[in-house]
Amino acid sequence: MAKKKQTKKKATKKKNTRKTGGVSKRAKKGSRKAKSRKTPRMSGMIEDEAASIQRTIMRGKKPCLKFPIRSLANVRYRPKIGYFELKGRKKERTLTVGTVKTFAQTLRMMSLSKDLVEQDDIATKREAYYVSKNWDSARFREQPESDTVIDDVEALFQVNREQLGFVPEEKGGDVAGKLVVLDRDRDTGKMLRIDCTRFGSGAYSIPISVEDLGFETGAKFILAIETAGMFQRLVKHNFWKKANCILISMGGVPTRACRRFIRRLSDEKKLPVYVFVDCDPYGIGNIYRTLKVGSGNAAHINEFFCVPQARFLGITPEDIEKYKLPTHPLKEVDVKRATDALKNDPFVLHHKPWQRAFTRLISMGVRAEQQALAKWGLNYVIENYLPEKLAKPEKFLP
Amino acid sequence: MAKKKQTKKKATKKKNTRKTGGVSKRAKKGSRKAKSRKTPRMSGMIEDEAASIQRTIMRGKKPCLKFPIRSLANVRYRPKIGYFELKGRKKERTLTVGTVKTFAQTLRMMSLSKDLVEQDDIATKREAYYVSKNWDSARFREQPESDTVIDDVEALFQVNREQLGFVPEEKGGDVAGKLVVLDRDRDTGKMLRIDCTRFGSGAYSIPISVEDLGFETGAKFILAIETAGMFQRLVKHNFWKKANCILISMGGVPTRACRRFIRRLSDEKKLPVYVFVDCDPYGIGNIYRTLKVGSGNAAHINEFFCVPQARFLGITPEDIEKYKLPTHPLKEVDVKRATDALKNDPFVLHHKPWQRAFTRLISMGVRAEQQALAKWGLNYVIENYLPEKLAKPEKFLP
Repeated sequence: MAKKKQTKKKATKKKNTRKTGGVSKRAKKGSRKAKSRKTPRMSGMIEDEAASIQRTIMRGKKPCLKFPIRSLANVRYRPKIGYFELKGRKKERTLTVGTVKTFAQTLRMMSLSKDLVEQDDIATKREAYYVSKNWDSARFREQPESDTVIDDVEALFQVNREQLGFVPEEKGGDVAGKLVVLDRDRDTGKMLRIDCTRFGSGAYSIPISVEDLGFETGAKFILAIETAGMFQRLVKHNFWKKANCILISMGGVPTRACRRFIRRLSDEKKLPVYVFVDCDPYGIGNIYRTLKVGSGNAAHINEFFCVPQARFLGITPEDIEKYKLPTHPLKEVDVKRATDALKNDPFVLHHKPWQRAFTRLISMGVRAEQQALAKWGLNYVIENYLPEKLAKPEKFLP
Repeated sequence: MAKKKQTKKKATKKKNTRKTGGVSKRAKKGSRKAKSRKTPRMSGMIEDEAASIQRTIMRGKKPCLKFPIRSLANVRYRPKIGYFELKGRKKERTLTVGTVKTFAQTLRMMSLSKDLVEQDDIATKREAYYVSKNWDSARFREQPESDTVIDDVEALFQVNREQLGFVPEEKGGDVAGKLVVLDRDRDTGKMLRIDCTRFGSGAYSIPISVEDLGFETGAKFILAIETAGMFQRLVKHNFWKKANCILISMGGVPTRACRRFIRRLSDEKKLPVYVFVDCDPYGIGNIYRTLKVGSGNAAHINEFFCVPQARFLGITPEDIEKYKLPTHPLKEVDVKRATDALKNDPFVLHHKPWQRAFTRLISMGVRAEQQALAKWGLNYVIENYLPEKLAKPEKFLP
């Protein structure tokens, strides 16, 4: 047993060094040449892992896989890097009579991922579940089982599952403004220049996987907006032209694709990200905080999906008073969310201004939506609120 | 009292003739010159209504507004025109001490609509609610109150509220394939040609209001798809190229904008609409049926939003057996939905093939998702299922 553990430890250490290094380089560069670089690396990583398991078996030992534990308890907030990070505790899956099915399923899932990457294809979690129906006794009975195995594989390789070819079910995130997205035609390989200034009242819909996109822009900042309605107003009035910016509609809590898109765009083009959401514990604690530092139960992917450079433009508790906004009373769930954040959220605990903001909101006992500005006229937000705010970005909340 | 009723009746009749005529012409043409034609008509309609109320008051009579009752009980299915239609029962709102506030609110909402139309602006229902905060004693206390008044105004003029400048909160609907959308730049008035073949892995996101869009296409049909994941697969593999079609992702039950977009595109370009959803009572009864014939509680707008030309490509109960698809057992709510449809849904009651399909589904006791085809390989849907289906469109369910 002692010997086995040692072998594993060594193998894991070697693996981690190699992989983390490779991945962060990739995340930093994130260029549109990614595909050509991704294919050999990802499928190589999978092959290496499989070969190491095979070797262990050939030596007559029990192979073992190690996955980081994915929970808030295994997470710390690192202000310097800007997101929730795994503390490093791991769970192990050793091949035994009891684990043989899950072990086999994990290997088959790795094999499916290798196929996807090599063939430049994608599979949603649901599709992957159905593919398993042809895996004989390794087939999954229910989708939650296969979802967990995909999450495990993602955590095992310390990558995001889009890099493994697994894409989310849901789409989300619309873009308009001073941005050209670079994509390519799959059949011809020809570069496609997608000009987001030329969609009129419509918008560019962010694809499910954004790893291979490139960007050209002369914009000064990204404005990430909570509601589709507010986005549509700013698009309708060409706000991006006057403000020289890129508008992104998150439609509530942003999807993985939307978060990754904002992150890659902001990283690559060194653009600040300003976030415009409702002033309530949900808008601040769920939408903004998830976008900026990620969430606890998905900490193994925060590295790729959070946007540490995001800053909170509004609506702030101060705005409610300054602009005399119509409000709604805080619901019980709002108050609970706010008090919980003040007590347990490592992000809030780190930032004094957020502690003050939450405390103020609780004592005011009200919340306000971004549309509340319409009290002063439908386009008050365009003519007054946003210009006044954007004149002083240093005042944005962290 | 008798006299007053007479006056109202006359005024209403005159109004209805004029409006219904005008609107259906507009709906049929639906050209991108709509804006220039819309502005005078809509604001003229509102002015006429207001003037008629003023005249009644000046004559010392009590003015009255008549709205169609919006419920399933006031609806019939007209197979010839293809959608649920109001039977014509109306509710009245006469100006009295008890109704004075709602009456005033209705008039102010009409006035806001007139401003929106004349200034080519939009307001979401939520924004309209906040605008009312400056209406002194006519302000709304809660948004559901103002929503109802907007619905009333919409029904009063027998138009869809997008034509009145009121747009929904939510967006939805992505497009890729053989279509050029014609829009215009608001500032320059210049025509914008949005080529949906050139979005790579992304897509064109349908705007909240589609009334003013124009279309150019050489496609043979529209394929409306339930899930974003399936849409992304077909986009990724350029399925629209091989099949010469337009792909539209509905993302579950389609939004108003998505339904109206499909309807206008299909009408204007005489394109058949094929619908590809899960085989369960929700996919058939909610998504497909809503798209095709509309819903009961919004019957006053079905004229604009339903797509009577839509036909059901699959997944059919027959497909489950033919393609040996992996299934899930029907949930209790599924069985209830199916038996309810067989008993009460005028659309199902009219179509024998749907009665057979629902009966078969209930006796099979299972449902299948469109992703279930992945059992035979991720791209089985592209290489086998869709080509086999599309070879026999006459077999599609009505």
